[in-house]
Order: sequence, then C-alpha cells, then structure tokens
Amino acid sequence: MQRTDYPATGAWHIGLPAGRRQFVHLGERAVALDVGATLRDVTIAYETWGTLNDDASNAVLICHAWTGDSHVAGAAEEGHATPGWWEGIVGPGLAIDTNEWFVVCSNVLGGCQGTTGPASPHPDDGTPYGSRFPVITVRDMVRAQLRLADSLGVRRWHAVVGGSMGGMQALEWAITYPARVDALVAIGTCLQSTAQQIAWGAIGRRAIRIDPKWRGGDYYDAAVGDGPWQGLAVARMVAQVTFRSDNVFTDRFGRDLADADAENSGIGLWDKFEVERYLDHHGDRLVRRFDTNSYLLIGKAMDLHDVARGRGGLAQAMRRVASRTLAMGISSDILYPTYQQRQIRDLVAANGVEAEYVEVDSPHGHDAFLIDTAQVGEPLRRFLQQG
Amino acid sequence: MQRTDYPATGAWHIGLPAGRRQFVHLGERAVALDVGATLRDVTIAYETWGTLNDDASNAVLICHAWTGDSHVAGAAEEGHATPGWWEGIVGPGLAIDTNEWFVVCSNVLGGCQGTTGPASPHPDDGTPYGSRFPVITVRDMVRAQLRLADSLGVRRWHAVVGGSMGGMQALEWAITYPARVDALVAIGTCLQSTAQQIAWGAIGRRAIRIDPKWRGGDYYDAAVGDGPWQGLAVARMVAQVTFRSDNVFTDRFGRDLADADAENSGIGLWDKFEVERYLDHHGDRLVRRFDTNSYLLIGKAMDLHDVARGRGGLAQAMRRVASRTLAMGISSDILYPTYQQRQIRDLVAANGVEAEYVEVDSPHGHDAFLIDTAQVGEPLRRFLQQG
Repeated sequence: MQRTDYPATGAWHIGLPAGRRQFVHLGERAVALDVGATLRDVTIAYETWGTLNDDASNAVLICHAWTGDSHVAGAAEEGHATPGWWEGIVGPGLAIDTNEWFVVCSNVLGGCQGTTGPASPHPDDGTPYGSRFPVITVRDMVRAQLRLADSLGVRRWHAVVGGSMGGMQALEWAITYPARVDALVAIGTCLQSTAQQIAWGAIGRRAIRIDPKWRGGDYYDAAVGDGPWQGLAVARMVAQVTFRSDNVFTDRFGRDLADADAENSGIGLWDKFEVERYLDHHGDRLVRRFDTNSYLLIGKAMDLHDVARGRGGLAQAMRRVASRTLAMGISSDILYPTYQQRQIRDLVAANGVEAEYVEVDSPHGHDAFLIDTAQVGEPLRRFLQQG
Repeated sequence: MQRTDYPATGAWHIGLPAGRRQFVHLGERAVALDVGATLRDVTIAYETWGTLNDDASNAVLICHAWTGDSHVAGAAEEGHATPGWWEGIVGPGLAIDTNEWFVVCSNVLGGCQGTTGPASPHPDDGTPYGSRFPVITVRDMVRAQLRLADSLGVRRWHAVVGGSMGGMQALEWAITYPARVDALVAIGTCLQSTAQQIAWGAIGRRAIRIDPKWRGGDYYDAAVGDGPWQGLAVARMVAQVTFRSDNVFTDRFGRDLADADAENSGIGLWDKFEVERYLDHHGDRLVRRFDTNSYLLIGKAMDLHDVARGRGGLAQAMRRVASRTLAMGISSDILYPTYQQRQIRDLVAANGVEAEYVEVDSPHGHDAFLIDTAQVGEPLRRFLQQG
C-alpha cells in the first residue's frame, strides 16, 4: 500500500509487444452473451504449443483461472510479464506433453491480456469500454472459445483441462458442447459456486467499489498512481488467503515482522507482519499486470457459475456430459473443498460415463494445482494418454 | 452499501442513556500501555449481575470479543442497542448462574461502548482522540480490568471466562496475574494469533484505510452519511465469513438471489445473492453501534496477541498459569481451529495444573460459542461449580 507508481490498468493493449500471442478477430460475427447483450468486434488472444496432427485429434484446450492468461508455459519475456502459470505441467515431455498434444490456451472474454475486455476500445468510439462492458458468464467465455476452436479447425478436443475457474470452463464445455469434448479434467473447482465462495467474491468487489479511484469503472485516463490499484490490492488479498492454508502460512510466516531490523517495533497500527508483506507483494504483482474491471467481471462470472442454470437442475445438466472425466481435489483446499470435486465424479459416473476422482495430498490449499505440479501432473499425464 | 443515513460513529458517549452501565473513573492514575504511552482519565464501563458474597469469592469475569461490550445479558433497551451477547449462558439458573455468581463484564480499553477509546474526548482538549489514540494490546485491556477488580474489591476471580478475543484476555489474566485467577475458561481462542488470522485482520484494516471517509482516523465531525461506514462494513464482511462455515452458508443461503421477486435477473454486476444481503445486514447493524477506529484498534490488538511475547517463549509463559483450565474448541471453526485450544489444554496440563479440553460439535463455525449455548453452557456450568 506504500507504492503509488502504478498505471491505471495493467491490461495488455495494441502497440505493446505481442509476445507469443496470436489473435482471432471475430469482427461482425457478434458473441451473444447470457446477460442478453452482444459483443461485436471481439478479439481472442491465444497461444499454442506443439503441432495439430492431420486429423486434428490431438488438440488439448487449457482454460485459465481468475488472474491467468494465455501464457501457460514459457519464460517471462517481452510481452509476458510473468512466466507461464503452469510451468512444470505443460511442455516437451511433461504431463501435458507438447511433443504429443497440440495445446491451446486463450485469454478469457472479459480478460485483460489480449482478448476483448473492459480495457479494450469500444468499437463505437475507440475509447475503453470501462463501465460499458457487460457482465459475462463462464458460458460466455466458452462460447467465445468455441469460435477459436472453429478457426483452428478443431472439431473435437482430445481434452479440455482447467483448475479453479478453468475447471468451470471445462465443465461448461462438456455440458454445452458434449460432441466436441472427448475428455474433461476439472481440478479444484465446482459445479455451482457456493454461498461462501460468493461471499468471498463479494468482499473483493466491495473493496474495489469503495476505492474512489475506481470511478465507477471509468478510470482508464487516470494518471500513473491515480488508478484503482488499492482496491484491487485488497481484493487480491482476500483471494490470496483463501487460495492458501493456515498451516502453510504458519510454517512460512509465523508471527515474524516485516522489516524486523528496522526501528519499528511491530506494534504500530500500520507496522506489518511478514504475512502482510507477502500479501502486499502479491497485490503489487497483480496490480502491475491486471485490470481492475476485469478482476471485478471475472469474479462475478465465477459467482454466477452454476451449471444447472436454465437446464432443469443439476442432475439434468450433468446428464449432458459424454466426456470421460478426471476430477481432482486438493486435501487442504478451503475455497473449493474436495466434496465439490467428488460431486463432479459422482454425477458424471451416475450416467454411466467413465469418471474418476484423484485427490492431491498437499498442505498448500487451493493453489496446490499450480504448486504441486508432480502430484497434479502424473494423473493428468496418464488420463490424457488413456484416451 | 445502499444506505447512507449512518452517523460517523456508533460509539456510546456521555449524554446518551447509560442503561445498565456503571463506570469507574481512574483519573490521574494513568494506565501504562505496552506501546510505551500512558492513558490518563480512563473510564471503564461495566455491568454486573448477581451479588458479591461476603468474602468476595464468587466473582466471575466475562471478557467480550471484538465487537462485544459490557452488555452480556438483558434485553435491547434504552442505552443498549442490542440484547445481551451471551443470552442463554448468563442469567438466573443458566450456565453462568447469576443466583450463585457475581458476574462482571467491562467494555475493553479502546472500545466504544463507555470505556475510554478513540471516540472518547481527549483530556487535553475535549475533542475525540481519533488518530491520537494509541495502539493497545490485549494485555493493556487486562491491565485496565485489574483496576476495575480492585475497585470492586475482587482480589481473586472465581473464574475469568471468554470466547474469541475474550479468551485471549482470559489467558492474559491467568498468565499476568496468576494469584488473582482461580479458574480460566478459554473458548475458540488461541495463545498466539497465527499468520492466517493476522492476514484476515489486515484485510479488514486495509478496507477501512482505503475508505476516503475514514480520513486517517479523524472523522468524528463528519456529517451523517459521511463517516467511514463503507470501509467498516467491508471489514465486517471479512470477519463474518470467517466466523461461520461453508455448510451452514450453503444450507441457509445456497445460491438464492436477494430480491428474487424484483425485476433484477441476478446477473447485474451489483445484483446481490442472498448471502450478500445477509452480510450487508450484519454490516449495517455493526455500523450503527460501533466505531470504526475501535474496530481497527481492537483488530490490531488481536493480531498482536501473543502470550509468549517478552516472556521467554510459549512454554515459559504458560508455566505461569496456576488456574485450573477449561479450553473449549468448536469442530467447524475455520478461524480458530481446534488444535489451538487443545494446545492451551496441553500446555497448562504440562505444568501439572488441572486442565481439560471440550469440543463443541457444531456446524456453525467460530460463532458457535454465541449460538450453541446449550453445548457451550453445560461444560461451563459444571466447571464453575467444581471450583
């Protein structure tokens, strides 16, 4: 909360290095949204690894989580502020082996790393959408990804894979387009966001809303340091605590003070414990590479996530799934407890479709799907090769 | 977040009906604080139930939690915005039987319901302390309570009892003044706040800090609706989620929308789910009866809570305890997990002092100590009578 040299948005925009990004421009082929509106001139940013085979049967779609983007693998480099978010899982010889699979990951609709989102220019006037950007749902994200699949010539994914909100997208793929998904991998995710998950999301939204620099969503012309970065940083703190676990925080930070060598006694109202410095650091990193409106909208999409909506209930919705399924849970996940992934396995299996549940035994909480790559990777590798 | 007719502070102040409150004025006998400062002209507001017996051996001190006050029992009435916070536990014939025990509860130092706190007039100029109020610790709260005990003629408490931050005070009583505490009851609390607990506290503090209406702590002359109530409401949301549990939220709220009958589809960015309305309701209630600076300071006191500080370590500190001890945990408490109360029992017992651990089997999370009064009351009644 000390720094002030943040730009108003960390969104990628045209004119910056594209890095590994490729783009599909949908032009006048508007994307119809659940909210009733449509979006035209949508751009989808994506990255690929490996080679699509002749019968286009080796394509794997990876869906990213809240603050992820298309950069699943690879170094932090020009155009990409951070290294691949699933390094250790995706690459030559790794669990999602890019020598074998043609791997695709796109930035979600409403995101801020190349795909059309609230920081993108509105086609009417070329200025950022800001508060004009509509609420989007996970289904809307998947609807946009379908266009990408078409443009790539992928009629049927060998697998759609995702953790957290990525898993929500994978589930919606399997339910909405069952003929186009051979296999489904859903990690640390759920069929319907629960009241507690919604509550966490709502707190982050409120923190952003009370930041006067958010300006109702129209802050893109704000000077450096005058954007809504403080509200975003607080919202990120909430998420970051729910992504981890009590015992790992205790082991790593305990009651250590930040700047213990300095004169501060630790007893001042704003003196920081080490865990606070850690949370600040994560907030800092996010503020530099993300957009506050995207954070709001994607969070709302997760709260609205409910595979049953408009489908006659949960069991009815899940009867549409024809993809063999791997559901993975994390033993210490307080945000998406393991009963939610067991429920995925149970409902898919109830329809006679092959489904298994694997539990990652990790102390790291929800983020274990990003951290414990060995434990996550082995069942994933095996499952992909079985197909 | 819709209402705006809140006063700048919900603190009680002189001129309002006192209700059941009594007062001790310490005058020039300053209270020395851990932070190094002293407070003079301190007033302690307290309530009592029952009658102190001739040898002053039947006095029970109850210590309140974060947003509690001296009003443990009794109706909401003139001077008391809310009913007693431990109704069902304290009263004639109840677990803490006021026919048998002389029960005392005081508002903590730094509080806002009659005891000197940041909304109180500074003795130098008669205007509220605001940002001038020092950081206080749980030990400081107990130091002030010692003065109250002296003024009441209580040399030795039959028991000191508390849940959550009340339990922190009870622990500090037993460690700091072992000769004055016969028995200790610590419910849903800990010996040292953990990194995760600190992280939750820090998030609430940041939410208040980014509310421009907080004004660095000097907001007491703000007009109605212009005080820092939005930041306080967000901070309270964080606490409220950690006080409850996933399954109870699911059972009670599910994915129901607030105002489902209205035209809103639930899909607007600020449309509320029922769980959000519930959190708003709790925020509303708190804003009306609490003071934002008190909320900040008391939260910081909890984060600073560490019975080991300055005592040569945890085991060394706990060797001071001579009080027989009842530690109680709640099976579904995500904020103060039961390992923390078992640790209290273990460390007291390790010194050959009678200590037991009782677990409340409840789905209600941390707040079960306020909700499941039958389960909490029975061991408490038995333990008090054993003395």
